[in-house]
Amino acid sequence: MSSNHRLYAYLNDEFLPLESTYLHVSDLSIQRGYGIFDFFKVQGGHLMFVDDYLNRFFSSALLMGLPVPYSEQELKDILVRLVQMNGIPDAGVKMILTGGYSENGYDPAAPNLILLQQPLTLPSEAQVATGIKIITHEYVRELAAAKTINYLVGIKLIQQVKAKGAHDVLYHHNGLVTEFPRSNFFLVRQDDTVVTPAREVLKGITRKNVLELAAKKYQVVEADVTLEDIATAKEAFMTSTTKRILPIIEIDGKPVGKGAPGAVTLDLLQDLVELENRQVV
Amino acid sequence: MSSNHRLYAYLNDEFLPLESTYLHVSDLSIQRGYGIFDFFKVQGGHLMFVDDYLNRFFSSALLMGLPVPYSEQELKDILVRLVQMNGIPDAGVKMILTGGYSENGYDPAAPNLILLQQPLTLPSEAQVATGIKIITHEYVRELAAAKTINYLVGIKLIQQVKAKGAHDVLYHHNGLVTEFPRSNFFLVRQDDTVVTPAREVLKGITRKNVLELAAKKYQVVEADVTLEDIATAKEAFMTSTTKRILPIIEIDGKPVGKGAPGAVTLDLLQDLVELENRQVV
Repeated sequence: MSSNHRLYAYLNDEFLPLESTYLHVSDLSIQRGYGIFDFFKVQGGHLMFVDDYLNRFFSSALLMGLPVPYSEQELKDILVRLVQMNGIPDAGVKMILTGGYSENGYDPAAPNLILLQQPLTLPSEAQVATGIKIITHEYVRELAAAKTINYLVGIKLIQQVKAKGAHDVLYHHNGLVTEFPRSNFFLVRQDDTVVTPAREVLKGITRKNVLELAAKKYQVVEADVTLEDIATAKEAFMTSTTKRILPIIEIDGKPVGKGAPGAVTLDLLQDLVELENRQVV
Repeated sequence: MSSNHRLYAYLNDEFLPLESTYLHVSDLSIQRGYGIFDFFKVQGGHLMFVDDYLNRFFSSALLMGLPVPYSEQELKDILVRLVQMNGIPDAGVKMILTGGYSENGYDPAAPNLILLQQPLTLPSEAQVATGIKIITHEYVRELAAAKTINYLVGIKLIQQVKAKGAHDVLYHHNGLVTEFPRSNFFLVRQDDTVVTPAREVLKGITRKNVLELAAKKYQVVEADVTLEDIATAKEAFMTSTTKRILPIIEIDGKPVGKGAPGAVTLDLLQDLVELENRQVV
């Protein structure tokens, strides 16, 4: 998180230089990995789809029993102020809410709220044109409906993903495909129907936007997806805040469809970029 | 973590006052819940079974790909020095190793090592004489062989445990009982055989000590344990570093055996206390 000029963060009612933003080691994120977060893009100074991300942040907090110390509007005002102070028009913003400074290292206390702005790297045109290779792994995220800070399995798998020359790892469980550690999964059937897993996934904001855009042109289904469904798919792609839409050309060493980014995938990416650009105006 | 006198902690080559021991918010425990830990007792100034705990700490670190910046002997020397500086003869010591200050909030960096000494409350004689009530919950810990900092489910369940007037929650998965969030589970069959789950559990040091003590007097089995096995058990108890052996008298509202602490349980507790006391001499 280096930058050319001083970045500010926000911790419990205070704007602080990012390099001076620390938590005491009694915090329940450090002691017990207990916390939730969310992450959205700032584009041209505009907080992209921020209400959706705030809704999900508050929903995750509720699911994990962590009271957010502000209303959604108050938190939005603080986020706008942080982005103004930092003056980076294109960046990512992370909101973290932890279990707080626990007296006994187990029972939650008043949550600590951290807001951070950080540089954002979107996929290059070359990466979109080439597409990515992925591997699969048997796993389902705990408490999948909440955006918790638990990435033990995803991070443990980083070396394995790299060793296989892959870009990311797709989780599946009991025969059903779910999601990537930080992204959602879509496939396109031979009849151009757009499909994404319905259950045991974190419902991404980009996933939601893509579903809405796709419904204007294609059949769209939220349904159970199996590894066999992928083997017969025409196209596949991942969606996330930072990736937008990234074509998947290979899964576990086998090509998806023709082994190149598909027409529906690239069409939806163009629609998504246009949707994002319309937000900024 | 309050105390009558100033407590010291240790962070990355430095002894620091505990109240000044902080991690930057880029640490991967805060960002992604990525870290491992261990916890042992100090009794009469003696680091109890410390080699066993150090072995497990290094084993957890290896499983999660986190290099410990010291040898076991070096770390032990630092722990002895910390306990001497703090001058609290009876206490708990926690070692935490996190994913470090991540550049991008996902890839691990040089781990941060934190050592903390904290007050320790052992179960009262009254609690042992009364025994505890527990509930059950369908769940299996991720990467159960490593002592990671992930306690999302256990902490989320605290309110539910309290609401049912229970003391703790026993996990089971696919019909098999595994462990508590922070303790191991044992039962005693009608023929006095001592049984503890063999798979998908963190192998506690107290569990190991109890197995060794029990083997001197009883049949001992590490095996699969079902909820039905508990229904027909004579006794049940939990083991942990801080609980030692705590009799379980009720599970999900149903009495275990005669609904009172059992003779084998109390016999093993006495043996364990004697084993501990022999370490201190």
